[in-house]
Amino acid sequence: MRHINVGIIGFGTVGSGVVEALINKRGHLSRRLGFAVNIVKICDSDLDRKRHVNVDSSLLTKDVNDILDDPKVDIVIELIGGIHPAYEIISRALKNKKHVVTANKALLALKKESLFRLARDNSVQLRFEASVAGGVPIIKALREGLISNRVNSVYGIINGTCNYILSGMTNFGIGFDEALANAQQKGYAEKSPAMDINGLDSAHKLAILASLGFGLNVRLSDMLIEGISAITDADIKYAAEWGYVIKLLGIAKRTAAGLEVRVHPALVPNKHPLASVNKNFNAIFINTDMLGDSLFYGKGAGSVPTASAVISDIADISKDIVGASSCWTPGIVYDSYAGSIKKKDDFSSGYYVRFSAIDKPGVLARISRILSEYKISIAFVSQEARRQERIVPIVMMTHIAKERDFTKALAEIDRLAFIKKKSVVIRVEESLNEK
Amino acid sequence: MRHINVGIIGFGTVGSGVVEALINKRGHLSRRLGFAVNIVKICDSDLDRKRHVNVDSSLLTKDVNDILDDPKVDIVIELIGGIHPAYEIISRALKNKKHVVTANKALLALKKESLFRLARDNSVQLRFEASVAGGVPIIKALREGLISNRVNSVYGIINGTCNYILSGMTNFGIGFDEALANAQQKGYAEKSPAMDINGLDSAHKLAILASLGFGLNVRLSDMLIEGISAITDADIKYAAEWGYVIKLLGIAKRTAAGLEVRVHPALVPNKHPLASVNKNFNAIFINTDMLGDSLFYGKGAGSVPTASAVISDIADISKDIVGASSCWTPGIVYDSYAGSIKKKDDFSSGYYVRFSAIDKPGVLARISRILSEYKISIAFVSQEARRQERIVPIVMMTHIAKERDFTKALAEIDRLAFIKKKSVVIRVEESLNEK
Repeated sequence: MRHINVGIIGFGTVGSGVVEALINKRGHLSRRLGFAVNIVKICDSDLDRKRHVNVDSSLLTKDVNDILDDPKVDIVIELIGGIHPAYEIISRALKNKKHVVTANKALLALKKESLFRLARDNSVQLRFEASVAGGVPIIKALREGLISNRVNSVYGIINGTCNYILSGMTNFGIGFDEALANAQQKGYAEKSPAMDINGLDSAHKLAILASLGFGLNVRLSDMLIEGISAITDADIKYAAEWGYVIKLLGIAKRTAAGLEVRVHPALVPNKHPLASVNKNFNAIFINTDMLGDSLFYGKGAGSVPTASAVISDIADISKDIVGASSCWTPGIVYDSYAGSIKKKDDFSSGYYVRFSAIDKPGVLARISRILSEYKISIAFVSQEARRQERIVPIVMMTHIAKERDFTKALAEIDRLAFIKKKSVVIRVEESLNEK
Repeated sequence: MRHINVGIIGFGTVGSGVVEALINKRGHLSRRLGFAVNIVKICDSDLDRKRHVNVDSSLLTKDVNDILDDPKVDIVIELIGGIHPAYEIISRALKNKKHVVTANKALLALKKESLFRLARDNSVQLRFEASVAGGVPIIKALREGLISNRVNSVYGIINGTCNYILSGMTNFGIGFDEALANAQQKGYAEKSPAMDINGLDSAHKLAILASLGFGLNVRLSDMLIEGISAITDADIKYAAEWGYVIKLLGIAKRTAAGLEVRVHPALVPNKHPLASVNKNFNAIFINTDMLGDSLFYGKGAGSVPTASAVISDIADISKDIVGASSCWTPGIVYDSYAGSIKKKDDFSSGYYVRFSAIDKPGVLARISRILSEYKISIAFVSQEARRQERIVPIVMMTHIAKERDFTKALAEIDRLAFIKKKSVVIRVEESLNEK
């Protein structure tokens, strides 16, 4: 039987998952593909660590060149993550005319332009299904299934850690710290979860999705990026009273004035399909010219869903190798007709705000006056029973306003003497209400 | 620029949608693919009908041979539907070494084995993304994205007409006839909607999904197939009281004893993602060994979503033609390791039953006794206030029971003198409650 040889770089949690799946699924894959996928080498800097999969020690190496320079290796699988040395490794693999499969969203978000150019110039493929929502074949859907569609908007719950924390807070009424601790205990949050919590991981994935979906080179610097650490159980409760749940969303939206791209927690209407995406699940809600609304829902991370995505990329590349094809789905196509990307504060939104104010007469009037000076009108307001001269939350939701106006108004309000803490702001995705 | 030539057979609603999209999206597709897709011929038996897309009359023909025998035609697009002459046309196209794209679920359900063999023997592709849930790239997901996965179960809402009717009944409290009339008025149901209403259309699609997902040649004769015409607004209301909505489901489920495949209305727990799939939307809920649960949601039918699916198939085949590939995703892979298909009444389920009985003492006792003789235990029962000697509904839900036992028990009950109409039975998908 014809076979394809892969070399795997990175034998940690994800690498072990891929190795295990390739071994266990060998027969299954051969029957479906008509040829076998062989692991010829596995590289890791630490070969002594205990792993839950057993491989012949002759496959193991600490020297990445044993893979990059081996003419037998058809496809290099990069699973070490991070920027360096992953960037150098993938670059060398592509220059050595090896196809590459990667799960590395941070690297792609930063270096996608040069890496896809390198792949094209060397006539090899660089595939990345596992980089966004591993268990959801969204990259394939955007690149192939929806190839004829013009995407209008993408709303993604693309960080399982944040979604686990927020849905824990929502469903069990617990605070952020307890929800984070639960997530860590269950293995859904890392010990150092900053990249997840602060929205950066979602931003990496959104950069990939938006570039793919809209044909523009979307950079992190184009995005407003906010995380979820300021959200309290009180915010969850107020949102619920008004018919919303709070989700960390990656949003990319085509407007007449250009593409909006941003990552921040958002109030999502209760009845919207994204509102019921719970625990560590991911979901991507897309609107296109030909299909209207679509939703793709599944496990986002974990070594097994990631392995599923990596193997689908291996299978696709392998078919092209075995079939000696010289034409395949390109990485990301930048489309000169796609328009431009808006400045990151150039959008409008509804706003949920929780002010922490000393409760005395005139406070609400003062806040309202400043908002109205910036043409921001209030939709709802909720104020706790008065406790003389104590700090109380004043919570409100505004109608649609301009981000720039709102930011200025809030800065002015937060400078007032009776405001005792930085106000908590969560944007309200009213556009999801129309669905 | 290199180009691919397609010939389109069938210039009705779907055909016009595909032609229009290929014309309007020509630039978009060329930029993404790196080559152009040309329409070289369009065949239809009626060339005089008014269509909403204008094409040069030199493209039009009534003679299918102008496409099938034209050496310039790379891909034949079959959009006439039905079994004959679609079967003969596709067979000839494949024998003439032309790749084929079809949206014809009825034909594939009946003839998939011979058609895919013919494609393989002639080294051409037969693609069919549009045959199931056009706006949802589920065929691609099952064949490629989830290639390494072993599918455990598929639950599909795959008929937009039935879903529009059932969600209309649920959301507006209207009866079946009014909901059907609404669907017809909105263009979501045909004038002769029998194939949709009686479950056959869903069965065609399930035959394709299940064959693909489980590697077995699933035939219509393997399936229990029931439609939705017996369901009344009363059933919708009782289901709601007990925490369920009624959906027409296509179900394929792997069990230790073999594959279960069936189409019938089912009580779906309120909180399950499938419960909130409304209007004419389709959704496929899949459980696999590597991913756990996934959901794919989008528009199922309509000329534009169908065109989107057809063009994705054209794009995939075109890449293989331009790249001169000799290896591609096979049609459906029958896997000798996949096990067998169970007899169609060999499964277990919970049951919702609405009996129409003359209300007199002892009726419920008599029904209960027969059920208990077949080892069927009752979970809930609801009986309307007594109206002496009038027909009243007795509604109950059973615990899990064997289909064969239940069928026998029901036949016995329906023969009782005080039962005045055939009882209405809806199966309860308790397994969705665990999610």
